[in-house]
Amino acid sequence: MTTAIICTIGDEILIGQIVDTNSSAIARELNKIGVQVKRMVSIGDDRGEIINSLTECLAECDIVITTGGLGPTKDDITKDALRELSGAQGYRLSKGQLVIIEQILSARGIRMLEANQNQAMVPDTCEVLLNRLGTAPGMAFHDLGPNGSSLYSLPGVPFEAIGLLPTLMGDICDRFRTEKISHRTLVTFGIPESELACEIADIEDSLPSHIHLAYLPNPTIGVRLRLTSFGVDTDFEEEVAKLRGRLGNAIYGEGEDTLPIAIGRLLKERGATMAAAESCTGGRISELMTAVAGCSEYYYGSVTSYDNSVKIGTLGVNPDTIRQHGAVSEECVREMAEGVLRKLGTDYSVATSGIAGPGGGSAEKPVGMAWLAAAARKKDGSVEVVTKCVRFASNRAVNIERFASNALNLLRLKILQ
Amino acid sequence: MTTAIICTIGDEILIGQIVDTNSSAIARELNKIGVQVKRMVSIGDDRGEIINSLTECLAECDIVITTGGLGPTKDDITKDALRELSGAQGYRLSKGQLVIIEQILSARGIRMLEANQNQAMVPDTCEVLLNRLGTAPGMAFHDLGPNGSSLYSLPGVPFEAIGLLPTLMGDICDRFRTEKISHRTLVTFGIPESELACEIADIEDSLPSHIHLAYLPNPTIGVRLRLTSFGVDTDFEEEVAKLRGRLGNAIYGEGEDTLPIAIGRLLKERGATMAAAESCTGGRISELMTAVAGCSEYYYGSVTSYDNSVKIGTLGVNPDTIRQHGAVSEECVREMAEGVLRKLGTDYSVATSGIAGPGGGSAEKPVGMAWLAAAARKKDGSVEVVTKCVRFASNRAVNIERFASNALNLLRLKILQ
Repeated sequence: MTTAIICTIGDEILIGQIVDTNSSAIARELNKIGVQVKRMVSIGDDRGEIINSLTECLAECDIVITTGGLGPTKDDITKDALRELSGAQGYRLSKGQLVIIEQILSARGIRMLEANQNQAMVPDTCEVLLNRLGTAPGMAFHDLGPNGSSLYSLPGVPFEAIGLLPTLMGDICDRFRTEKISHRTLVTFGIPESELACEIADIEDSLPSHIHLAYLPNPTIGVRLRLTSFGVDTDFEEEVAKLRGRLGNAIYGEGEDTLPIAIGRLLKERGATMAAAESCTGGRISELMTAVAGCSEYYYGSVTSYDNSVKIGTLGVNPDTIRQHGAVSEECVREMAEGVLRKLGTDYSVATSGIAGPGGGSAEKPVGMAWLAAAARKKDGSVEVVTKCVRFASNRAVNIERFASNALNLLRLKILQ
Repeated sequence: MTTAIICTIGDEILIGQIVDTNSSAIARELNKIGVQVKRMVSIGDDRGEIINSLTECLAECDIVITTGGLGPTKDDITKDALRELSGAQGYRLSKGQLVIIEQILSARGIRMLEANQNQAMVPDTCEVLLNRLGTAPGMAFHDLGPNGSSLYSLPGVPFEAIGLLPTLMGDICDRFRTEKISHRTLVTFGIPESELACEIADIEDSLPSHIHLAYLPNPTIGVRLRLTSFGVDTDFEEEVAKLRGRLGNAIYGEGEDTLPIAIGRLLKERGATMAAAESCTGGRISELMTAVAGCSEYYYGSVTSYDNSVKIGTLGVNPDTIRQHGAVSEECVREMAEGVLRKLGTDYSVATSGIAGPGGGSAEKPVGMAWLAAAARKKDGSVEVVTKCVRFASNRAVNIERFASNALNLLRLKILQ
């Protein structure tokens, strides 16, 4: 099997100032073409360390992919380390990249500096992978190390690195024979990982030996069940049918599906629209829904009613409801859901009101508790609302994430009704 | 200097299904106590690979920190690898963790399964780091490898791993002498990295040899300028004064500051409130503002007016404005900002209308273009609005992020006026 090691370069990673998202994006693509990622490693902007680590990586696998260390500022030294590692005599100008640099800077109204121009200089041993989204070009070096391995260097800016992946994967497919790995992922929501494992234990135990099942829990997405087979080409139809039979509506999609994508699909099938009224989730539901391109077909908008005056003035919540039951209550969240549905004139809506923390909790309504609601307009014009109380014990960010995903799941089930 | 290697374990990382955020959180804390992270590495759920990699890591540094591979399901095998690596005879029950497991499951209404109970079993060589936020305990093993290094194992769920860091860092400080590294970070917005580098080149060149300057660009935060000194304790007062003198209002904060934190601070100083009207940013501005605990003091809420009917019906935008100029126009965003300020009764507001992509662009209004507005209520009750047109060339997610952060910066500058 063709093997790869991903190596991210940058002091900012080692001191924890940024999170490395490139490795996972690259790994996902390698996986799809049957290249096995043996390891990921992050190292600092140190010339010696870069050369040593990459030399070691090149001896252990067929493909090394690096990201980072190619910016216009002085703390980037990767390119020179790659020049030495690849035995290049010197640098040459990539005219193609220079044209792109000029275009990008002029479109953004930024004047060209020498540091920008230098970004178009590459070691004379490399093939340039033109970066149309940024100023630093990608580079490919071949026949390196004891096994004649390839090294690909990508810029560190995530969307630029991702933009170069199709070119890179094409080149890898051309150069390396790759063994088949098949994946199929079912996406579930609403059953905790341990219960899920118990519920499908017999199905898991009866899997053929070349198929492996993994559980991938995520607070936003739910628990993904990933089936993997090695060597043998499989569509997993039989396994998927068993899991669907057992788990029913808890499964909402496959592969890269998320709750907003699944909800969008259901709404489009029905020619229906939706809105959101958010308190504790503060805009997160709206952000998740609008992260899906084309959502304007079914998503009208939302009201984030953080302050009670907005719940009353914009959503039409009765002030007495808040006085009697508080803003974090079944009664309030019900009125919020109905209010935003009527105000924005949609077929469905979702609403949240809870305590994200760290402050604001009480014995009766602790941090991590929220009321969620999903509303549907009936044919007679009346509005039907379902509510749910949830309670988590996480930090602010995770509580918000769980409130949002659980509210979206409540809406999904309401639409399915 | 005390050195560490961070090792994350999990097939889900190597195939790119999840992004590793733990390493960066751990690295940041190690950095604060002067422990140098030499490397980060991610490996799969393979018993042999775990033992080999950790053995290698233990030979190279004083402290190895692992995360992941401790869940209740069958694909987690780290604990047994750690048992073997540490020479443990067998397992013992952590009664403290068992009590926590019972509490967590009962609070969430989940029944206790054998798989959960097994999570309280630990190799008899380890000290337990009680995990109060989840079911899998942390573990500390000492005197391992040729140098008597320490190995700490943390659960993979990010907020659980982060919750254990204070305990872990305390233990490390007790056990290891640590050399001093000082950091100070200034946070800027509005000047691209390469221009910034040019603008402060002379300051950078005149830095004392023990001080290093790094540029950390981030589309949400701006460009952070990080000063680092090794060995010598320094407060960087002189360097910071020079940078502040040169960059003025482009610097909005220090350390972990973000635009929402800086805006919150400005609003609190003025006893003022704000609201947002979002179209292309779809809720992201509201989410960013409400990610800050305590924001209810100054943040009233927002209207996401994705559909034009919401711009007109809820925000009071004149239908003629949209007919004549389109929703993505200076005129529309101006009315959105004024509309939400008046509707929600705040002192300030921010508004966005643009084309996030991938669809919806035209020659005149291409994907990546947005109109932004910031509004302030004057003493006489009138509303003053500033607008700005921005143009980026990224994918949907990055465009949204840049629209949101640029709008927040426009608001920040408006408040400062």
